[in-house]
Amino acid sequence: MRSEHLRRANLGLVLRRVHEAPRTRSQLSDETGLTRSAIGSLVGRLGEAGLVIERSAGDPSGPGRPSPQVAGHPDRVVIAGELAADSVAAAAVALGGTVRAIRRLEGSQRDRRPADVVRTFARSVAALLDELPSGVTVVGVGVAVAGLVERPNGLVVVAPNLGWHHVALGTQLERRLAGFARLAGTLAAGPVAVANEADLGMLAECARGAGRGRRHVLFVSGEVGVGGGLLVDGVPVRGASGFAGELGHLPVDPTGRRCRCGARGCWETEVGEAALLARARQPLEVGRPGVAALAEAARAGDPVALGAWKETGRWLGLGLGGLVNVLNPETVVLGGFYADAFDLLEPTLTAELAARTLAASRAAVRVMPAALGPDAALIGAAELAFEATFADPLGSGVP
Amino acid sequence: MRSEHLRRANLGLVLRRVHEAPRTRSQLSDETGLTRSAIGSLVGRLGEAGLVIERSAGDPSGPGRPSPQVAGHPDRVVIAGELAADSVAAAAVALGGTVRAIRRLEGSQRDRRPADVVRTFARSVAALLDELPSGVTVVGVGVAVAGLVERPNGLVVVAPNLGWHHVALGTQLERRLAGFARLAGTLAAGPVAVANEADLGMLAECARGAGRGRRHVLFVSGEVGVGGGLLVDGVPVRGASGFAGELGHLPVDPTGRRCRCGARGCWETEVGEAALLARARQPLEVGRPGVAALAEAARAGDPVALGAWKETGRWLGLGLGGLVNVLNPETVVLGGFYADAFDLLEPTLTAELAARTLAASRAAVRVMPAALGPDAALIGAAELAFEATFADPLGSGVP
Repeated sequence: MRSEHLRRANLGLVLRRVHEAPRTRSQLSDETGLTRSAIGSLVGRLGEAGLVIERSAGDPSGPGRPSPQVAGHPDRVVIAGELAADSVAAAAVALGGTVRAIRRLEGSQRDRRPADVVRTFARSVAALLDELPSGVTVVGVGVAVAGLVERPNGLVVVAPNLGWHHVALGTQLERRLAGFARLAGTLAAGPVAVANEADLGMLAECARGAGRGRRHVLFVSGEVGVGGGLLVDGVPVRGASGFAGELGHLPVDPTGRRCRCGARGCWETEVGEAALLARARQPLEVGRPGVAALAEAARAGDPVALGAWKETGRWLGLGLGGLVNVLNPETVVLGGFYADAFDLLEPTLTAELAARTLAASRAAVRVMPAALGPDAALIGAAELAFEATFADPLGSGVP
Repeated sequence: MRSEHLRRANLGLVLRRVHEAPRTRSQLSDETGLTRSAIGSLVGRLGEAGLVIERSAGDPSGPGRPSPQVAGHPDRVVIAGELAADSVAAAAVALGGTVRAIRRLEGSQRDRRPADVVRTFARSVAALLDELPSGVTVVGVGVAVAGLVERPNGLVVVAPNLGWHHVALGTQLERRLAGFARLAGTLAAGPVAVANEADLGMLAECARGAGRGRRHVLFVSGEVGVGGGLLVDGVPVRGASGFAGELGHLPVDPTGRRCRCGARGCWETEVGEAALLARARQPLEVGRPGVAALAEAARAGDPVALGAWKETGRWLGLGLGGLVNVLNPETVVLGGFYADAFDLLEPTLTAELAARTLAASRAAVRVMPAALGPDAALIGAAELAFEATFADPLGSGVP
């Protein structure tokens, strides 16, 4: 039993590594401390189970014949979902991180019933499954949602920008997806994993994006609301009950605007989508496409648009300054619309951050845009969905 | 070599446990997973080295003869120091946590030269050493300072409330203390450990005070400045370069007062000692005794004093609300003068915190006063000073 447990852990370790990036057998041996023969046996078993493939390396420029690389099998996928205030997305993401197919429906989900949003998502999943070749096997489902989520049961405690309270999202998703034959195996093996979209955005950026290899990361994402996450010494901070990272509700102005949370002058009221649009005298309804248009207008020299981005950058720098003083991160990753308009935000952001941070912490930190674009949370949801496979690679759900 | 390393680790493990609180051999066995005979051998070796004693338990009410308890030897002490803006303190703290002797000199240290403050501290140490019986051995020195400290070299990068920049405090302390014969052994064995006073206050409160046994703690201490620390999943957050925890420099009011750090409207300008005294129309010079008098006046019903505490409590609750949203702690421990006047701050603090926090995080958190009083940082400095002994209990410095 003990050695079986160890073997399972080692299979997971190897699979996790090749999921990060393809590696030769000798790299795997070096990185895991396992012998070449142990690696050979583990790779063999993972290959038989259809989880990895071996292929010749892409770069034949070195001396001798290049060693083949072990890579995640592109036909083992998870279904990743994102239920956000302004769009619903679904993707099929393969071991190794390749996005095989993706569908994003733009459009406000605010105050729609959870069951209706879940139905919209299920329709996208149906279309995705139709697109996937028959040889592709689904080994997990993970969903990012713009709300506070209780894990592992997938209960959404509150999702202010969706207007939801106490929604058993995990259960609703499982019921709705149960009709798809190609998901039967994975749904029988384990639950749909649900987590907060900003937490998953950070997970993705730290695994595959701007925070890759960093151990102290502050992730701040501008969407309808402002979410975020903290990585401290390589570990995501979840807090006592899993709700850490509600960065948008830092108080920054006691005489500021009323926030949806009920308080006054939360950071989100100055750096959220609504504040930006209001500064540019745009109606809230233009949503994310309106934000993109506003960035274009600013780049074309429109003074009102430029001013709106500058002022938003200043407030962004102010709040970031406080968080840098508290957390002393090495990297601040800006996601959501902050990443799209990083060039417009950076000047005032940097100036305000410099004025607000103690020199020692300022010297340690670099602010950069997220690298994964609008699909970061979706990619994080895929990473989450693969966790069960890494925990037990040959377990149920895999033939 | 490997087994020697393991033996050292196990000696440290046992010593750390009995330092926390006395334990029977069978409790030690249960808690460490080591066999009774291994525990016997380790306790024996620690006893021979004069690090632990065995004594009959205090409570003979149970059935049978009570098992003896293993305890830290009260004659193994560290010298702990605190260099704060308004006082300099030194203490001798024994294994097991008993404070054998303490000296605190009240009086502003602002803008005194580091060498002068170190001299003041050394005089207190001289007096302490005179008081200690000759059988007492000093095994370490640890000092808390009100500034940002680079570890392990003990460089104070900046100490705004002392007016210091780039002070090699560790080196200065070592030079000044080298004259004491009773410190020769420990100074030969290793450096004087220097750390930030709020970090050490948190360490002490989590080891022996209000945060004992908690894994997600936010510690906020009101002194001349406002410092703090975070414990996340049982681990203190130090940040990328060790400067995390500068809670006083969260921006809370863009039109607020100018802060010593150069920015405007930092939390410290509303919840620091100066803000409290200004609200009560007291001169800054009354210092900590003036703060204590202000608490007495409020308790006696003085409306101006009461108003000053209420307003300070409200601002305290506002900033805490933001931090609770970001970090989702289970416990907030308030130290420094916040602990002394917890009764006066609590009503407005609680109301503002409730208005500022998302329900899920609010439900998870309890706010309580620090339990160790004004000596928390000093006790934390002692804990820090014992670290070298725990890392290598039979190492140099111990006969």
